[in-house]
Amino acid sequence: MLSPSKAVSAEELVRETIASIPALNPAWHERAVLRLNSLTKPLGSLGRLEEIAARLVAIREEEFPDCANKVIFTLAADHGVTEEGVSAYPKAVTRQMVLNLLSGGAAINVLCRQFGIEAVVVDIGVDGDTDELDGLVRMKVRRGTNNMAIGPAMTRAEACRALQAGIALSQRAERDAKKVVGTGEMGIGNTTAASAVAAVLGGKPVAEVTGKGTGLDDAALNRKINVIERTLRVNQPNVSDPIDVLSRVGGLEIAGLAGLALGAAARRIPVVIDGFISTAAAAIAVAIEPRVKGFLFASHRSTEPGHDVLLKFIGLQPFLELDMRLGEGTGAALAMPLLEASAKLLKEMATFSSAGVSESL
Amino acid sequence: MLSPSKAVSAEELVRETIASIPALNPAWHERAVLRLNSLTKPLGSLGRLEEIAARLVAIREEEFPDCANKVIFTLAADHGVTEEGVSAYPKAVTRQMVLNLLSGGAAINVLCRQFGIEAVVVDIGVDGDTDELDGLVRMKVRRGTNNMAIGPAMTRAEACRALQAGIALSQRAERDAKKVVGTGEMGIGNTTAASAVAAVLGGKPVAEVTGKGTGLDDAALNRKINVIERTLRVNQPNVSDPIDVLSRVGGLEIAGLAGLALGAAARRIPVVIDGFISTAAAAIAVAIEPRVKGFLFASHRSTEPGHDVLLKFIGLQPFLELDMRLGEGTGAALAMPLLEASAKLLKEMATFSSAGVSESL
Repeated sequence: MLSPSKAVSAEELVRETIASIPALNPAWHERAVLRLNSLTKPLGSLGRLEEIAARLVAIREEEFPDCANKVIFTLAADHGVTEEGVSAYPKAVTRQMVLNLLSGGAAINVLCRQFGIEAVVVDIGVDGDTDELDGLVRMKVRRGTNNMAIGPAMTRAEACRALQAGIALSQRAERDAKKVVGTGEMGIGNTTAASAVAAVLGGKPVAEVTGKGTGLDDAALNRKINVIERTLRVNQPNVSDPIDVLSRVGGLEIAGLAGLALGAAARRIPVVIDGFISTAAAAIAVAIEPRVKGFLFASHRSTEPGHDVLLKFIGLQPFLELDMRLGEGTGAALAMPLLEASAKLLKEMATFSSAGVSESL
Repeated sequence: MLSPSKAVSAEELVRETIASIPALNPAWHERAVLRLNSLTKPLGSLGRLEEIAARLVAIREEEFPDCANKVIFTLAADHGVTEEGVSAYPKAVTRQMVLNLLSGGAAINVLCRQFGIEAVVVDIGVDGDTDELDGLVRMKVRRGTNNMAIGPAMTRAEACRALQAGIALSQRAERDAKKVVGTGEMGIGNTTAASAVAAVLGGKPVAEVTGKGTGLDDAALNRKINVIERTLRVNQPNVSDPIDVLSRVGGLEIAGLAGLALGAAARRIPVVIDGFISTAAAAIAVAIEPRVKGFLFASHRSTEPGHDVLLKFIGLQPFLELDMRLGEGTGAALAMPLLEASAKLLKEMATFSSAGVSESL
């Protein structure tokens, strides 16, 4: 008799989570719209904040969902493809930035302090020792991916372990009574992986979904495009099998964030997606299970050209136009207050009858 | 000998404020950029937040401007043109909503509570008694404008008194050590006035700058367009004299908010503009004195088609895409945290050297 391999077992756990993701009940959505229409404002005049509010009600199945308790998970991982010279920064910066994140000096720390968001830093695949680092959540699946320009970034089993790690983060969020989770990442070379995912899922030429990342010049951008084209040729990822795409041309943080989205959806926790890399992860999650989409909110539109392709693939419009391209969860942090605002408006605004305001003619 | 009329005197006071508006000093801007480039992030990767931060430094002429103390002024006024059936709501709603604003039940109240913004409600021209209302700032210039479809909305002297009232609000903000002011308004019929202003300043056909406001049907929209076309024919506002435009086809809250922008600029206080009507006021201020532009930040893009025309006239890009059309200052409230975030990132992020992070290759 064959004992189940660890690989099968991780994928099975992921499948269980996927199967438990609920469909949103339109009755809750309609109930929210009725309430919104009774509030002292012209019908529909709060625009997308009303859509957010109604979706939060349907996600939580609560009349007045609360969004105050928030967390952003910043997943750090390295990428073997940096050997090909695809980044403006050396690989060592991933671990250096983990230290910066843990000591509160990164952009995401500043924003999380401002908006009352817990900032959690996770090592899901840093290529370096992190055992001595206080405050770090250790979920290292492996020390960075392989160079995907010459073979698969990781095995299918590793991709599933990374997905499972993300699901475990959603359990942690639920345990801590978090009402919204945000996705973030740190990984030198990860726009290369995200562009590869965008090219595969979006069915676009590599040149259309590849940008300058942290700051390449034109020559380096061309090299990056060539590397991604080679990566796709070598790996031939199977677009109808998102876990295959993830393992061949993805990254450990991308897999982890895809798992986080799946796990959060299964637990009815809304997910605010950060920028390009986080959206690649969300797109993988939606490709795995389209019901995830109902739980996702896009925060901002990055300057990376592949971001738009991934947002369209999912079918989301971001709220913020800030030309950011930093990652870490910074866009998610800036958009979380919009979810909170939507929930508060729903609950705290006066109604036409309570305020004695005349309704429309 | 002629004694100076009250009209001349109000306009003179406005001219004094205008003359005192400073030009921004590029040396402060460059100093901010140097600091931004030393922070632990790829160069320029915080996008427009970096532009905001640099502009705040140049406005305040401080290394680390603080934006915590914030106020939004919601100016309420009535419009005689409502006689022509241009709004989905009866005129009485302006005063009813003033009550709602004062008792904390309006959308702007909810958002100001969330973001720690003082919400100040100002009667600059409500057509009704407000003497008994607690907490209201009383600056009524007159009880609503005249019906501009048959003659000027107000006299030039009245427009200048409303501008002066807005300047007085900027003095109040300075007295209270406010570091950012937001503009907001409440006035049934005021999208009609804002569309007239947009048509004149933007040089556009009325149909291109006129929308459904609080919720007109197609027939009522056509009526509104006809009313505005008639208004422009009857009044022949002089596009090279923004105070003439304001008095003939503007509104008291539009004039007041234009004055607030002028006064805030003169006091080096950044101004966050709300939606369509607030942007019409900001556009008048910029038409009066182009140096005002350096102090303005556009918050969101309204669904009203004239809003884009006015934003282009000023030369500003909004940060938020939320399809809102509510006014009151709601968009400004949602954007103020972005200014705060920019200031905090500038001050609180670690530098490459302090954090021991390698700079780009």
